[in-house]
Amino acid sequence: MFSIHPTLESDTCEITDLPLSRVLLMKDRGFPWLILVPRRDAVREIHELTPDDRAILIEEVSLASTILTRLFSPAKINVGALGNIVPQLHIHVIARFEKDRAWPGPVWGSGPRVPYSEEELASTVSRLQDAFSRA
Amino acid sequence: MFSIHPTLESDTCEITDLPLSRVLLMKDRGFPWLILVPRRDAVREIHELTPDDRAILIEEVSLASTILTRLFSPAKINVGALGNIVPQLHIHVIARFEKDRAWPGPVWGSGPRVPYSEEELASTVSRLQDAFSRA
Repeated sequence: MFSIHPTLESDTCEITDLPLSRVLLMKDRGFPWLILVPRRDAVREIHELTPDDRAILIEEVSLASTILTRLFSPAKINVGALGNIVPQLHIHVIARFEKDRAWPGPVWGSGPRVPYSEEELASTVSRLQDAFSRA
Repeated sequence: MFSIHPTLESDTCEITDLPLSRVLLMKDRGFPWLILVPRRDAVREIHELTPDDRAILIEEVSLASTILTRLFSPAKINVGALGNIVPQLHIHVIARFEKDRAWPGPVWGSGPRVPYSEEELASTVSRLQDAFSRA
């Protein structure tokens, strides 16, 4: 039975389910930051997925990147599968800006998260859900 | 005419060419660290590749991950496409260990690189070339 790791769950809001991955929004207003979690049990590494799942995953990463680019016009998309702390495969897809708090370094370890206001979070979730539903 | 960005070129050694990507070894003995550069001009983002190229890329990332796992038995593989500094699409595939200098944080920005000795570098390049040639 698939479930999101509790650490990921508490740090994020659910956006939608794509064919393979659950799409989450990181609760950090410093970056438009999605996390894709393939709904497969006990997988920590990309090379542990089947080739068919990998082919779907890279298209879902590409879709998430395209949506972030369209909605937020970032300078760069950052994609990362680290998982040194959370033992469940998850792929970060993050819109980066030359004025964000970590630029040009990585976002991971760049300091404490900045919470969204309730309104901002609801509106960001809704814009993203709308974009994924039209994709 | 495809060429590796000068910053990437000066930081790495060439290992091999896969069907899509050139495989480079980062000259940092702190981590077994490969970089895959798709041989496509003027591409900065995964979502700018064609779907066919993306399908090949994820298999090449998976192959690089499998080879690092087999040769070095890491605790975790980290995969990342950042490119905030170097404007050429390149994907890091890095073997991570609980005792490496950045664990459990990201390797990027984790401090100055530690040079290989000439012998270590030659032997690491040769082990990697051998593993890719058998794959």
